Amino acid sequence: MKTEFTEKDLLTRGVEEVIEEKNLKKKLKKGKKLRIKFGIDPTAPDIHLGHTVPMWKLRQFQDMGHTAVLIIGDYTASIGDPSGKDKTRPPLTEKEIKKNYKTYEKQALKILRKDRLEVHKQTEWFKKFNLKELIKLTSQISVGQLLSHETFRARLRKNEPLSTHELLYPFLQGYDSVAIKADVELGAVEQKFNLLAGRIIQKQNNMNPQDVITTPYLLGTDGKEKMSKSLGNYIALQDKPEDMFGKVMSITDDEIIKYFELATPLPTKEIKKLKKEKITGKTARNLKIKLAELITTIYWGEEEAKKARKRFETQFQKQEIPKDVKEFKTNKKKVTDVLDKTDLTSSKSEARRLIKQGAVYINDKRVEDIHAEIPKKPFILRVGRRKIIKVSKK
Amino acid sequence: MKTEFTEKDLLTRGVEEVIEEKNLKKKLKKGKKLRIKFGIDPTAPDIHLGHTVPMWKLRQFQDMGHTAVLIIGDYTASIGDPSGKDKTRPPLTEKEIKKNYKTYEKQALKILRKDRLEVHKQTEWFKKFNLKELIKLTSQISVGQLLSHETFRARLRKNEPLSTHELLYPFLQGYDSVAIKADVELGAVEQKFNLLAGRIIQKQNNMNPQDVITTPYLLGTDGKEKMSKSLGNYIALQDKPEDMFGKVMSITDDEIIKYFELATPLPTKEIKKLKKEKITGKTARNLKIKLAELITTIYWGEEEAKKARKRFETQFQKQEIPKDVKEFKTNKKKVTDVLDKTDLTSSKSEARRLIKQGAVYINDKRVEDIHAEIPKKPFILRVGRRKIIKVSKK
Repeated sequence: MKTEFTEKDLLTRGVEEVIEEKNLKKKLKKGKKLRIKFGIDPTAPDIHLGHTVPMWKLRQFQDMGHTAVLIIGDYTASIGDPSGKDKTRPPLTEKEIKKNYKTYEKQALKILRKDRLEVHKQTEWFKKFNLKELIKLTSQISVGQLLSHETFRARLRKNEPLSTHELLYPFLQGYDSVAIKADVELGAVEQKFNLLAGRIIQKQNNMNPQDVITTPYLLGTDGKEKMSKSLGNYIALQDKPEDMFGKVMSITDDEIIKYFELATPLPTKEIKKLKKEKITGKTARNLKIKLAELITTIYWGEEEAKKARKRFETQFQKQEIPKDVKEFKTNKKKVTDVLDKTDLTSSKSEARRLIKQGAVYINDKRVEDIHAEIPKKPFILRVGRRKIIKVSKK
Repeated sequence: MKTEFTEKDLLTRGVEEVIEEKNLKKKLKKGKKLRIKFGIDPTAPDIHLGHTVPMWKLRQFQDMGHTAVLIIGDYTASIGDPSGKDKTRPPLTEKEIKKNYKTYEKQALKILRKDRLEVHKQTEWFKKFNLKELIKLTSQISVGQLLSHETFRARLRKNEPLSTHELLYPFLQGYDSVAIKADVELGAVEQKFNLLAGRIIQKQNNMNPQDVITTPYLLGTDGKEKMSKSLGNYIALQDKPEDMFGKVMSITDDEIIKYFELATPLPTKEIKKLKKEKITGKTARNLKIKLAELITTIYWGEEEAKKARKRFETQFQKQEIPKDVKEFKTNKKKVTDVLDKTDLTSSKSEARRLIKQGAVYINDKRVEDIHAEIPKKPFILRVGRRKIIKVSKK
């Protein structure tokens, strides 16, 4: 992927907070080649667009000549990052973790350059980490400091389970910074506590503490919540081209520019221009098509992106229904009941869930209410991008 | 050491609490041979009489045919048991720990039988304990449960430092019970949290949870505080015979029976008799001599105990001053100033400390006040048992 990032982008584009900004500016000014750390836990087999925000930041640093150090958190994944979670994560088996991280590097390489890149698994340093070393490591942050982590405090306050092994998470992530000698660590805002733990632990190990850059959230396709797998409002990097294209088309108009800024390499000067325009109606639709095509190109290449665009335009924009669409007759009234009887969903509860996720459409209008009833006239019922039937009353 | 313990002593003599009492009684009734665990951390080179209380309980179990399993906590010692402490302990080096535990077994064997005894170091199971296992282990107790430990809660409440590695302590002690398959674990009352951690962790490892017996504190020579090294009110098992004898003679009359019950094998029926007597004046002194001789015999043998008794009687009871006592003339008025000028102490602050510990005597009367002044007439000034001078005014 061709990019036109600039030195100025590093500390301004898609940045929530920089700690210590002054210090990092000084390092950059000196022209020192820095080691930029970014860790991903292979807790699921796929990454979504929300995960790519700090990866684009990493790419920007690569473009400016710095080294990206990608950490595959095969140990931290077995704990599960507690940050922002109200539950202990179910433990992953080693087999699941292995399966997951296989695809991670491949997906990351859609964004990162292959030169100026190091990939490390935590196993490299944690496999031989013994109890003595762990006792020493955990002596380096006090319980009081740990409980200043909003996630930990909130869970204790609300009597939500917080298992002791979750307290180990920031120590492990922090130690990674010692192991790979990080100058800078990137992460989403919720990662701030863990990123700062790296600073403490580096200091305790007589290293200069890394600087930290947090990146903002990307909102999901619902335009309301942070993109997340558990909310179902995500666009996976492994989504097939037409799904990916269609999902990007379903984001709200308000988010278009943020998506360009955080999840694509569109040059900053072009984003600045866009910010001056009024983005509604047809402008919004055209801009979204540009965004969908750009994002699909990143992960599937130009040709696939063009195909996806064409298919999308045929299916939805021109309101043409594929010729082979099935017809279904029903005497049910509620949308969920109709869905349940078709092969679009497998149960009423799935039907309700899909409506909540905004994946169900009647004549291309999203169904907002799980209690909604169907129109009296024949109509097109669609789930997601591709499951389509024609429905009429018996 | 000959003992006459009985089956009944197990759950009644020197016992603070039994969890689960019903369950343990059932096991004992069945005549099952049990594995009785007791752990000591080699945090200092010597053990004091306070530590022997659960060891005598262990000996009682041995006498009834059960196996004593002594754990030398060479890993937990590197953390330091936080129970009842208001500070993080300074970490011990491996060298210090090794030096300390060398003498431990030897000292324990003054109380325990050599048959029906297993001694294990934690190294046996913790040396190869890796990070994965530790993550699993620490997932077995929640942070909420840990913070129900009064020590942890109090430290956080008072903003006293509590280092994260201290939270690992109960997990390690608990895992010992899995490693050695404990049926029962003994410990002082303050150990209750750690002992119960063993139950939780055994259950998580599909074992029957151990029963737990806590033993009461022994008060120190001051008759006020729990015997403890840091308070200076302790009688070390390595104290020389005459020191040991003398220190026992310095306990308060109220504690004599407790010492017999908790720190000697004097048969329970004799203790019952003593409890009916009025222990004051000459009775108290004679009983204390019996106690001092018995305790000295345990650790140094009969002959040394007799010698110590003789020397004590000569020096203090008969008010005879050794013939070679030095004389010292002074124009100072305060006891601390006089001490500072002699070679009995090395500084005024040491003098004050010794007075606070109750180690300074004028004519065999303990000096209670650090601001006390010396008598007008010539007198005998003594520090501890053996540092003696005659003082008169210039």
